[in-house]
Parts: sequence; structure tokens; C-alpha cells
Amino acid sequence: MLIKNRKVISRLSKYKNALQRFQVLGFTKIFSEYLAEVIDCTSSQVRKDFSMFGITGNKRGGYIIEELLEKLNNILGKSVIQKVILAGAGNLGKALLNYKGFESDGIKIVACFDIDPSKISSNSAIPILPMSEIESYIKVNAIDIAILAVPDIVAQEVFNTMVRCGIKGVLNFAPIQLRANAACYVNNINLEMELENIIYFVHAHAATPPTDS
Amino acid sequence: MLIKNRKVISRLSKYKNALQRFQVLGFTKIFSEYLAEVIDCTSSQVRKDFSMFGITGNKRGGYIIEELLEKLNNILGKSVIQKVILAGAGNLGKALLNYKGFESDGIKIVACFDIDPSKISSNSAIPILPMSEIESYIKVNAIDIAILAVPDIVAQEVFNTMVRCGIKGVLNFAPIQLRANAACYVNNINLEMELENIIYFVHAHAATPPTDS
Repeated sequence: MLIKNRKVISRLSKYKNALQRFQVLGFTKIFSEYLAEVIDCTSSQVRKDFSMFGITGNKRGGYIIEELLEKLNNILGKSVIQKVILAGAGNLGKALLNYKGFESDGIKIVACFDIDPSKISSNSAIPILPMSEIESYIKVNAIDIAILAVPDIVAQEVFNTMVRCGIKGVLNFAPIQLRANAACYVNNINLEMELENIIYFVHAHAATPPTDS
Repeated sequence: MLIKNRKVISRLSKYKNALQRFQVLGFTKIFSEYLAEVIDCTSSQVRKDFSMFGITGNKRGGYIIEELLEKLNNILGKSVIQKVILAGAGNLGKALLNYKGFESDGIKIVACFDIDPSKISSNSAIPILPMSEIESYIKVNAIDIAILAVPDIVAQEVFNTMVRCGIKGVLNFAPIQLRANAACYVNNINLEMELENIIYFVHAHAATPPTDS
């Protein structure tokens, strides 16, 4: 079953993270009310989300966490290690290379690419290779997901190359609006913009929370 | 004038970034159509956004970039350096400390806090101080914005401390839903979730782009 709604998929990710934490605490079963509280939605929303994927609980016992996690991991494509490449070994790129948070989620950065010869390091744990090798690497290793952390001035060019070679999903950190491509799904993270938003709302002394609409 | 809508403020940030790039290219004036194309909205949306803040263009000449930037910077509170603290000097925290992208936007991380004594380094360019000093630091320096990059298990506790000391806006990287507080505005960035979303949509072979609704 294909779910096209980003918000549903975001919630499934949140359920998964919350369930892993409950498991660490020793829980084996869980009620929808607990999950709802942790991810800040209603319990009927939790049950509705799960029922979309044929996951049903038990009124008296709740959901079995292990089963739920297995199903969520299957839905989210986490049952195999997901290989990802990274373009850009600047400050942000290096940080992402050292970031351990992805691996616990079954995501592995397998190679990084940069145009600066001084950054090339093919012997490091995650090799940093010349940008000129990105095309052949994507094709030979059948990579379909990439992280873009290059300066904004070259971001569109690197993105175009990636898509041409078969990349189908990109997490973009460059602060530009990429001219999208129907063949490639893009999520944007703009650190400066997120901070700017906060600064604006704090300084505007917003007495009530801002709206998303 | 107080704008409560996050999407408007996000667009203002995008306009600002786009205008800075046009300026670098040598432009001194700009039409709403150009801005609309760069940030992927309609030109009437651009004009509507600007008119909310009393910014009007000229049909024949467009907007004067320098004036527009000055007004946008004032609205976004960028006319003074914004001091921000960071909690957590782990992989992500260190990356943020080294990240140069904020400074060009007038945002400066002035101190970092961690519980691990081996990470303390009061002589570094940005001092890394013991977490026990965060309360007095926030109060003495009248800091109102913080970045939260601590492990999820302590995130709520550190957040509560921050809010108690006067922090009014937080950029949260911990993959948990913070129990929010009317006195504090929170933006969340969840790197794993963003990547998981992409992986899901790529592997579900979504033929059409996902919806946000």
C-alpha cells in the first residue's frame, strides 16, 4: 500500500522512535494512548494510522511493540541497510559524516564527494572522493538516495548530475530552492531559516503560538 | 506588525537569501516575477507578502534590492547580531559549532554547554562550558534563543531548564516531541525522519509527488 501523505509517514517515523524508547524502558506492549501522548496527537489518530497498514491492537492488551516495530520498519523500508551518498565535505558535510544518529536507523553514508582536492581521503572510514567520480559511483553502486551539502552556488548543478545518474531522493541542506524534477523527491532542511523563524517569533513577542496554515 | 504565520516568515527568509544572491550577481533592482521563480511561488504572492509590511515596488522598475533587504532584515530581526547558545557538544553539537552558515545571517553561537567534563573547553573560540553553568549564563547574558542538540533522554529536562531561565525560542534537534510551553517557541529538525521520509517515498516508487495535506 502506497501512502502519499508526508504527515502520515512523518508520524510513522515518530511512532517507531517512540516505540524503540519504550522498548529500552522494558515495555513489551503499548496502548495507543501512550503513543499519542508521546508524539502529541490523539489516540484515535494513532489507531487510524496503524489500521491503514492493517495493524490492529487489542483493547485489553494494546499493541505488541516487537510486532509493531517490525511492521513499521517494513513500511518505512528499514528492514535493509539503506546506502546513502553525501555531496560536500565542508563544515556541514563533515558533521554529517561524523553523525552517529543515522546508523541506528539503518541508514549508512557510504561515500562523500567534494571538488576540493585537499579534502579527498579515500582511506577514511567513509571515503571522501573527487566530485568527478560521483556519476560512476552512483551507477556502479546503484545508489538512489543522496544528501546535498554543497555551497548554494553549485547545488543545482550537483543535483542535476545526481538525478541524471539515477538518484531518486535528495535531502537538501543548500539554502536554495532546487528546480525539482518529477523523477526525484526532495526534502529541504534550511538551518538558517529555522533559526530565523524562531528569532522572528521571539522578537515579535508572539503571545500565542504561530499557525502552520 | 506581527505576522503569526510561519509560512509567510519562511518566505521572507527565502526572499532575503535570494535577494542577497541577486545582489552578488550585480543586480540592484528586481521584479516580483524573478523572486517568484527563484523561491517557487507566484509573483502575486510575492507582492502580497511585501505589501503586508508596507513594501511596494514600481511597475516599471521593480523593487530596489538594497531597500528591500534593509526592510526584510528589520522585520526578521537581523539588524543586530543575534546571540544564541547551544546545549550539547556531541557530534551534531560540534558540527553546529563549526558551521559557518549562521554568521553570514547575523546569528552567533556564543557558548555551548555539555555534561561531559572531557568536552569542556573554556578557551576555544566558542567556549564549551559545564551544563551546570547554563542557568547563570542565560540569565547574566540575557540570552533568549537556544539550540538543543543533546541526547533525547535528557532533552526535555534541559529544555525545561532553559525555559525556566528565560529562553523564549528553541531549535530542537533531539528526536523527541518536547512538551511545549506557551512561553517558548520551538522549531524541530529531525534529520533521521527527513531521510526516512525520502527513503519511504523513493522505495514506494511514488510516481507523483507526495502531498503536504
